[in-house]
Amino acid sequence: MKLSKRNVIVGQSGGPTAAINSSLAGVYRTAKDRGYNKVYGMLHGIQGLLEEKYIDLSDHITTELDAELLKRTPAAYLGSCRYKLPEICDNMPLYDKIFDILERLEIDVFIYIGGNDSMDTIKKLSDYAIVKGHKCRFVGCPKTIDNDLALTDHTPGYGSAAKYIGTSVKEIIRDGFCLEYPKGLVTIVEIMGRNAGWLTGASALAKSEDCMGPDLIYLPELVFDPEKFLEKVKKCLEEKPSVVVAVSEGIKTKDGKYVCELGITADYVDAFGHKQLTGTASYLAGYVAGQLGCKTRAIELSTLQRSASHCASRVDILEAYQVGGAAVKAADEGDSGKMVVLVRLSDDPYQCGTEVKDVHKIANDEKLVPREWVNKEGTYVTDQFVSYVRPLIQGDVSPVMVDGIPRHLYKPGYHH
Amino acid sequence: MKLSKRNVIVGQSGGPTAAINSSLAGVYRTAKDRGYNKVYGMLHGIQGLLEEKYIDLSDHITTELDAELLKRTPAAYLGSCRYKLPEICDNMPLYDKIFDILERLEIDVFIYIGGNDSMDTIKKLSDYAIVKGHKCRFVGCPKTIDNDLALTDHTPGYGSAAKYIGTSVKEIIRDGFCLEYPKGLVTIVEIMGRNAGWLTGASALAKSEDCMGPDLIYLPELVFDPEKFLEKVKKCLEEKPSVVVAVSEGIKTKDGKYVCELGITADYVDAFGHKQLTGTASYLAGYVAGQLGCKTRAIELSTLQRSASHCASRVDILEAYQVGGAAVKAADEGDSGKMVVLVRLSDDPYQCGTEVKDVHKIANDEKLVPREWVNKEGTYVTDQFVSYVRPLIQGDVSPVMVDGIPRHLYKPGYHH
Repeated sequence: MKLSKRNVIVGQSGGPTAAINSSLAGVYRTAKDRGYNKVYGMLHGIQGLLEEKYIDLSDHITTELDAELLKRTPAAYLGSCRYKLPEICDNMPLYDKIFDILERLEIDVFIYIGGNDSMDTIKKLSDYAIVKGHKCRFVGCPKTIDNDLALTDHTPGYGSAAKYIGTSVKEIIRDGFCLEYPKGLVTIVEIMGRNAGWLTGASALAKSEDCMGPDLIYLPELVFDPEKFLEKVKKCLEEKPSVVVAVSEGIKTKDGKYVCELGITADYVDAFGHKQLTGTASYLAGYVAGQLGCKTRAIELSTLQRSASHCASRVDILEAYQVGGAAVKAADEGDSGKMVVLVRLSDDPYQCGTEVKDVHKIANDEKLVPREWVNKEGTYVTDQFVSYVRPLIQGDVSPVMVDGIPRHLYKPGYHH
Repeated sequence: MKLSKRNVIVGQSGGPTAAINSSLAGVYRTAKDRGYNKVYGMLHGIQGLLEEKYIDLSDHITTELDAELLKRTPAAYLGSCRYKLPEICDNMPLYDKIFDILERLEIDVFIYIGGNDSMDTIKKLSDYAIVKGHKCRFVGCPKTIDNDLALTDHTPGYGSAAKYIGTSVKEIIRDGFCLEYPKGLVTIVEIMGRNAGWLTGASALAKSEDCMGPDLIYLPELVFDPEKFLEKVKKCLEEKPSVVVAVSEGIKTKDGKYVCELGITADYVDAFGHKQLTGTASYLAGYVAGQLGCKTRAIELSTLQRSASHCASRVDILEAYQVGGAAVKAADEGDSGKMVVLVRLSDDPYQCGTEVKDVHKIANDEKLVPREWVNKEGTYVTDQFVSYVRPLIQGDVSPVMVDGIPRHLYKPGYHH
């Protein structure tokens, strides 16, 4: 017996990406196409829902242009949160409260766009629904620039971040080679990804006929040896006047200490008693300058890695949209406690489809770069790595330019 | 009597920009169109010329596509330098050496693309040519992201940097608003421009119907008062959950100390005896966090401000090309000791032409943001400022994408 269709609610959680709103657009469009009545958006995820903060997305996406703008709008349109639900047995009343709100809003389908923590939320809510006999279905939609979710070939958001990193590192390499310093120039580029090196490895995308690419790449999966690093840099400097090194923010020495912590002497606080933290790149730039006497620069790609929608990958934005749609489709067809995954059929020509997987197999598991995708010395990614990421950065999504600056979707009544 | 046309030589100097190679393309094309024989490029400016390092540009720009790629290639294609010629009276043999090389290469026209120091080079060489009766003509082509050159309405390179800053700050603002922190979030964005606030002011371009823009903007032209700044930030935080402040790297307190120097305690060195420098944004983020207890982020837009040709302004790239052409034209028609300037005829519709001005009036003079283009409190630029910069960021130059990454012009045999 076919159920009568009531409403859908969708939330966004965790660190934003350039593609997360494209998934939101995909959820909205597919829910409408499949005959759902209302599509609500939780403001700031499950945390906002608990405070009954939500919007009716139809008030915001009123035209096809709005949907196109939403696909091009960086950061979580609905607002994000970093709220982890307690274990069910530890706080049943909280779960009852959530289900009361869902029932009041007549929700049949609950979609959560996010990373590991968000899939944990899907898992707990779907488990609780089974126990209590609630008919609402819960499906997760993967999203993270870090690309560290298990079971899916890659995550929406990663491709755009990788494209931004490849593009920016290539521009930085060009910049470095036009400068002249007597003892050479070493540029350290710090890239996001505390435990997984997917983003840092993407700096290899800069390598092409017209660019030698970064000289060294250090992922957080492998132990970082400052002395070996220094030797490598020295050797590069003997061969060329400008050396560019890509490092993950999360590289650690063999005793498990983050490189960014090495620069901190215990008693150092600034004039206001605030402990001054140095970044990984900044620390290494100081180290190289001190040891080799050359000019150094530290560049953190920082927040722009996840928010630079002006440089988004078309493949990524389209896949994010598709994954949002697939999540609604799965829930509509009866799935719950599942996450949509991307399944790659081939690299060249690139072909990729969606499936759904049991969220219990995904939540809280971290996918790292395989050891064999890094060279023996641990100083560069292999061609296999590049073949993996290259298809994900293909194509562009022209920003809608208004008065010289990309336009985003406006959310009336909210701060932007 | 018309002179027979021999050769042209062109060099690039100072900090690179996203548009400096478009000027180079303009020089090359116009020199060829006006019947010059060869167009040489000095490698690393006048410094390279002194070592007789140069290339024949015809070997590098062989097709129209090459010229289009050159326009889209960031950083100085020929390599840059920071070499200031000595006073003529202090080293006549050096000048004789330069003119010997120029004579050997049969140079009639010498074009130098750069900022203040480069115009100083043009001034000295043209003065020397007059004294010695050399017929070679010397014309400067303005270039700097800092926009601090006198007499010209603006400088090529500034528009693209301004567009990148406006776009990136807008994306950062979006990113900030989707996050939730109990005591709010303050993001400090550090922007280039040690003495002139043209780039920092361009962060106001983020403001539009869909974005409130940065909350506070601090230019280096005005004294920075950390306490007043803190009060302002506190007030903003009471009104909204995410505050974004744009600061120039060069802001100073009333005793003339750079803010980035405030974080350094005299005895602080890292484990390798290297003095650790903190950036302006990083220092202020620590200060705000310490005083207000909120979450803070420091973001340096860094090198990408001048190298992000993937986000270049069409107006800027075309004007840079035009200015390169105008420099050759001026020299071809007999001018020497001149710099091409941009003359704005109107803001809306934007109309801008070129003229040539005596380089003696330009060299070593720094154009700052007028006081009346900053609000009374010194915390934001005025609408006049925005009206000035807005036309300069219009339009895009689609990068030539190859395999997902922008393509640049390859220089055979050189490092990239």
